[in-house]
Amino acid sequence: MTDVYLNQLGVVKRNIKRADPAAVEKLSRFGVATIHEAMGRIGLMKPYMRPIYPSAKICGTAVTILLQPGDNWMMHVAAEQLQPGDVAVAACTSDNADGFFGDLLATSFKARGAKGLIIDGGVRDVADLTEMQFPVFSKAIHAKGTIKATLGSVNVPVVCAGALVNPGDVVIADIDGVVVVPAERAMEIANAAEKREANEGDKRELFANGTLGLDYYKMREPLEKAGLKYID
Amino acid sequence: MTDVYLNQLGVVKRNIKRADPAAVEKLSRFGVATIHEAMGRIGLMKPYMRPIYPSAKICGTAVTILLQPGDNWMMHVAAEQLQPGDVAVAACTSDNADGFFGDLLATSFKARGAKGLIIDGGVRDVADLTEMQFPVFSKAIHAKGTIKATLGSVNVPVVCAGALVNPGDVVIADIDGVVVVPAERAMEIANAAEKREANEGDKRELFANGTLGLDYYKMREPLEKAGLKYID
Amino acid sequence: MTDVYLNQLGVVKRNIKRADPAAVEKLSRFGVATIHEAMGRIGLMKPYMRPIYPSAKICGTAVTILLQPGDNWMMHVAAEQLQPGDVAVAACTSDNADGFFGDLLATSFKARGAKGLIIDGGVRDVADLTEMQFPVFSKAIHAKGTIKATLGSVNVPVVCAGALVNPGDVVIADIDGVVVVPAERAMEIANAAEKREANEGDKRELFANGTLGLDYYKMREPLEKAGLKYID
Amino acid sequence: MTDVYLNQLGVVKRNIKRADPAAVEKLSRFGVATIHEAMGRIGLMKPYMRPIYPSAKICGTAVTILLQPGDNWMMHVAAEQLQPGDVAVAACTSDNADGFFGDLLATSFKARGAKGLIIDGGVRDVADLTEMQFPVFSKAIHAKGTIKATLGSVNVPVVCAGALVNPGDVVIADIDGVVVVPAERAMEIANAAEKREANEGDKRELFANGTLGLDYYKMREPLEKAGLKYID
Amino acid sequence: MTDVYLNQLGVVKRNIKRADPAAVEKLSRFGVATIHEAMGRIGLMKPYMRPIYPSAKICGTAVTILLQPGDNWMMHVAAEQLQPGDVAVAACTSDNADGFFGDLLATSFKARGAKGLIIDGGVRDVADLTEMQFPVFSKAIHAKGTIKATLGSVNVPVVCAGALVNPGDVVIADIDGVVVVPAERAMEIANAAEKREANEGDKRELFANGTLGLDYYKMREPLEKAGLKYID
Amino acid sequence: MTDVYLNQLGVVKRNIKRADPAAVEKLSRFGVATIHEAMGRIGLMKPYMRPIYPSAKICGTAVTILLQPGDNWMMHVAAEQLQPGDVAVAACTSDNADGFFGDLLATSFKARGAKGLIIDGGVRDVADLTEMQFPVFSKAIHAKGTIKATLGSVNVPVVCAGALVNPGDVVIADIDGVVVVPAERAMEIANAAEKREANEGDKRELFANGTLGLDYYKMREPLEKAGLKYID
Repeated sequence: MTDVYLNQLGVVKRNIKRADPAAVEKLSRFGVATIHEAMGRIGLMKPYMRPIYPSAKICGTAVTILLQPGDNWMMHVAAEQLQPGDVAVAACTSDNADGFFGDLLATSFKARGAKGLIIDGGVRDVADLTEMQFPVFSKAIHAKGTIKATLGSVNVPVVCAGALVNPGDVVIADIDGVVVVPAERAMEIANAAEKREANEGDKRELFANGTLGLDYYKMREPLEKAGLKYID
Repeated sequence: MTDVYLNQLGVVKRNIKRADPAAVEKLSRFGVATIHEAMGRIGLMKPYMRPIYPSAKICGTAVTILLQPGDNWMMHVAAEQLQPGDVAVAACTSDNADGFFGDLLATSFKARGAKGLIIDGGVRDVADLTEMQFPVFSKAIHAKGTIKATLGSVNVPVVCAGALVNPGDVVIADIDGVVVVPAERAMEIANAAEKREANEGDKRELFANGTLGLDYYKMREPLEKAGLKYID
Repeated sequence: MTDVYLNQLGVVKRNIKRADPAAVEKLSRFGVATIHEAMGRIGLMKPYMRPIYPSAKICGTAVTILLQPGDNWMMHVAAEQLQPGDVAVAACTSDNADGFFGDLLATSFKARGAKGLIIDGGVRDVADLTEMQFPVFSKAIHAKGTIKATLGSVNVPVVCAGALVNPGDVVIADIDGVVVVPAERAMEIANAAEKREANEGDKRELFANGTLGLDYYKMREPLEKAGLKYID
Repeated sequence: MTDVYLNQLGVVKRNIKRADPAAVEKLSRFGVATIHEAMGRIGLMKPYMRPIYPSAKICGTAVTILLQPGDNWMMHVAAEQLQPGDVAVAACTSDNADGFFGDLLATSFKARGAKGLIIDGGVRDVADLTEMQFPVFSKAIHAKGTIKATLGSVNVPVVCAGALVNPGDVVIADIDGVVVVPAERAMEIANAAEKREANEGDKRELFANGTLGLDYYKMREPLEKAGLKYID
Repeated sequence: MTDVYLNQLGVVKRNIKRADPAAVEKLSRFGVATIHEAMGRIGLMKPYMRPIYPSAKICGTAVTILLQPGDNWMMHVAAEQLQPGDVAVAACTSDNADGFFGDLLATSFKARGAKGLIIDGGVRDVADLTEMQFPVFSKAIHAKGTIKATLGSVNVPVVCAGALVNPGDVVIADIDGVVVVPAERAMEIANAAEKREANEGDKRELFANGTLGLDYYKMREPLEKAGLKYID
Repeated sequence: MTDVYLNQLGVVKRNIKRADPAAVEKLSRFGVATIHEAMGRIGLMKPYMRPIYPSAKICGTAVTILLQPGDNWMMHVAAEQLQPGDVAVAACTSDNADGFFGDLLATSFKARGAKGLIIDGGVRDVADLTEMQFPVFSKAIHAKGTIKATLGSVNVPVVCAGALVNPGDVVIADIDGVVVVPAERAMEIANAAEKREANEGDKRELFANGTLGLDYYKMREPLEKAGLKYID
């Protein structure tokens, strides 16, 4: 936890404790589904968060942004706080699908070394972003422009699409969704994901050859106990 | 109708009466829009059911699965009931978008000869499923994993995305949606679809050359009778 | 404004005042986000309007269609009113996602020189439409067929996906959404868009080289005045 | 099951087999939550079905109506088929929230002895219906009027708000939702509901006096076995 | 049409042409369903607009307000433009459910003689508003406060919940929804509504006594022609 | 912050640090809108959280519950942790609208001294709960029953309807929505709310007598500076 509070307005925190780069690198090898399982099936954003192009993928440390509806001023403030390997994670103080982000900001974010953007709001210039291969996960695509008039914050804890994100947390996104790994648990989770992935290959081969999950996972007895009846 | 009732829990029916393979083969030649028209504009699932990749297509006989929210135990039970040419059709006892299905189950289903999955819920490992070209139509993509703790059923009648599906019915899915053809009407509908398709080619050519539907369908008189007014 | 009133039923207006072709041509060079900014951030349809394929783009003059739910009779009436360079813009008297439009109508519209379709409803035969490269922006894809029984109108003012469209207005659509430019303001807006676009290239280069929006837009002082605090 | 098929268009079935009146009477004593539990937690419509006034309650035998979007012609056809104790259950061939039903139809339905209306669509004249105390459960309230131009059906099986309803089935509705009991299972379910209700009174008293469900249901051991940990 | 354009920003029009008071008075005698039928089934807002208490009713002339998301500055500007008999009609430049309006503004609006508020956004202090009997129709109830930083407009044409509203138009709202009558058609529509209502009383009595709509409206023959089949 | 982590599964924390009772008492005097303003317009749950009856009100200290979809086992575990003055706040690991809570659990919660329930899911037995005057704020009303098979947690931090809730935080709910006040800021916020409320009475009287917000808040000059134009 940082020394600023959840959704605090009007604050930019400059020094944040980013997750261990080795853990981030390790987490980048796994998919969102695997990582969230490794955490005990928690940490996911809501399924309305979708990539702007199917192959979009992100893994990096969160620089959080708290936006006000219809206003993207804080995006510019956030740009300066981005370091190579960061992911911008933008929440909004209320539901709003305006296009808070487009190709110019993406150019700026990319120049800072950012890996992409997760935004619980809208995004635009999607053709350009796709050409630039700048990955964005958003709840909407919308040309609607925004103003620069009201203060939000940068690097305060935010709730984005139902998930709590602290600055420095690892955020991983792929076509299956977006997952948040707390910075202090990053290596623990990366190791758990690695372990989980290890025996997947074997299983895949067995299943491809016709072995049933019923037998592999020894489900027949518990199913019978639970009362499952086979009829003809 | 089978001897089990709608949404009955805790039952696996092993012997189901699948639609005539010749009818299934014939239906596979037509699109969902054509088939549903041939049935008299009925039998469609709700439009929120979307393919996980644009070219996904399915035609096969339904093995139905009734899931409980957050639980995919019955997916494993269903795998054993799948035969070559079947389509798994999964409904859930309540609205839930968890990722009930992923690449391991797909490997297993494919090994059994299944043509794809229709699920009124979520799916994950979408990148892998796309690479495998295992077609899935779902209401959501979501990494959220599930448990294996509560009984549902396999091969009982279910309501999936607003459409009644009996085991053995023919289910056809393409980018336009998903349609269910009752097993006992499969050949009748296949023939009606064939007939419908027959004169489409001629029409397309006429329209391409500038003939208007107004004239081709002789709509001018009924439109005038209905009171349509042209003004300048 | 035309001499028919908003959403009037049972009327086809034949002579409409289309926007200046030079203005339409000029508008076709810009994206939806740029044009809507040039108008003062107004004129957009709701973000639920999506293209049926990612590269779909339209720019043309509106022939408006007012549909009744479940009925596409007016689509055929509208076909005759389409001229080269027009865009069909279809609203519905109530929320309805039926598949009002498919490949035969598209063939007919294309033969008339239409640039595409914007529809606050459903569309089908999407695989064919994609192959024909006939661009459609819709709120749903749905195989559900329609009847031809009740009168709507053609070329009356309509509200489509939240935006007012008068016949002859310029409608521009791309992956960022759909924007409507009133016919009488078309050249003014085209010029404003051109001006807006002019200095974008320079900005992009500056941002790519690391200049921050904070400095380029001189935001540091107003941010400080607004009370933004930096902490470590 | 009747001799007509699901969602068949253009048919009115006059003789339907209504559930045993004694079973209907017995079911009317219980709430929707109790009855659906007695069925094994199945048979519910989706939760978007809401009463037009909080105290609305219905229990009766279904006369089913299949509507076309924007068209309430079949409502008038259905009126003639209603007998005392019936409930009109209206589905629509596609999603549509128009106001298919108002005070005049309610007057007519009431004169026929109908107990109320369940409609997967819109309703209007809600102030009058409330004053008449004619209970309606709908997915929307909407003034939008409808036409009388296209055929649907009366007394064919329909899927209404996700639940299959056969003509003659018992439909029970209260503030918790709407449940469908198949006619042939009506007495069995009524008896099961009665049994379920029997010991509720005792439980309520125990719980009011401070007994915990943990102890009453003997959950402490299974919770421990499942791995629940208490920490301080 | 006024001399300002749709959704124009930064403008307050002081002199608007309000509908004829006699027409407004006459329209106030009828329900929303009747009036929208009298207009030919057009002019309704979307059904998500709901009253904050069931008995809320409004009839008056529109003072339109164009809000920016998260900002209610224009509400205060609008207060000064309200005259006795007016209804405030607030649209927003993008989807936003913040609580733009509460009891203090209601006190001010009431002091100006306003009849109520229609808002395509959120409202708060609903307990106070209900006690004051100040009727509001909104798309959400939400405590979320707003700022006063960006310009919208007052008395420009707006699209509110799918309906075009020009300043001075008559807006009528009751539990069935919200309808907009163009100022210049107010008396014509009021008269049509009166005519429509006239024979409703007779019909109600006939239907209460058992006459069927099938006979009263002479539907049997057209139904037969359309192909309706009665089976036993 | 507690020593357990966000959404941790399988844990019950017995000793939680509840907010200062004096602060809770003071907060209970203010509405949700006032309190959230006093916090700087943050801390609100999403507006889909609605009371089951209009007069429902809650103010108390949170005992948090993390549910699994379709499973209410943890409700029984939570009952034992409730103390007089507590509010049960239930989140779910995925979107699910099942009826997790009914009159028996309410009887038990009430016997423990609980003030009510906030649940990001469904609730049932609403007629009984209303009669008992046990206030519940939920995202749905649904009769659908749940099972008791999978572990969630009690008194771990949760995200409920978009808001982070730590055990012991103050939760206040009324018809305007639900707000969460962190335990450690409870008295600070209560004092700020009191201050805010103090001059509301004066303002209300001024506004009732016709003073405009434009003048009271001295908005005319900033509006002019922002470029607002008055036209006739």
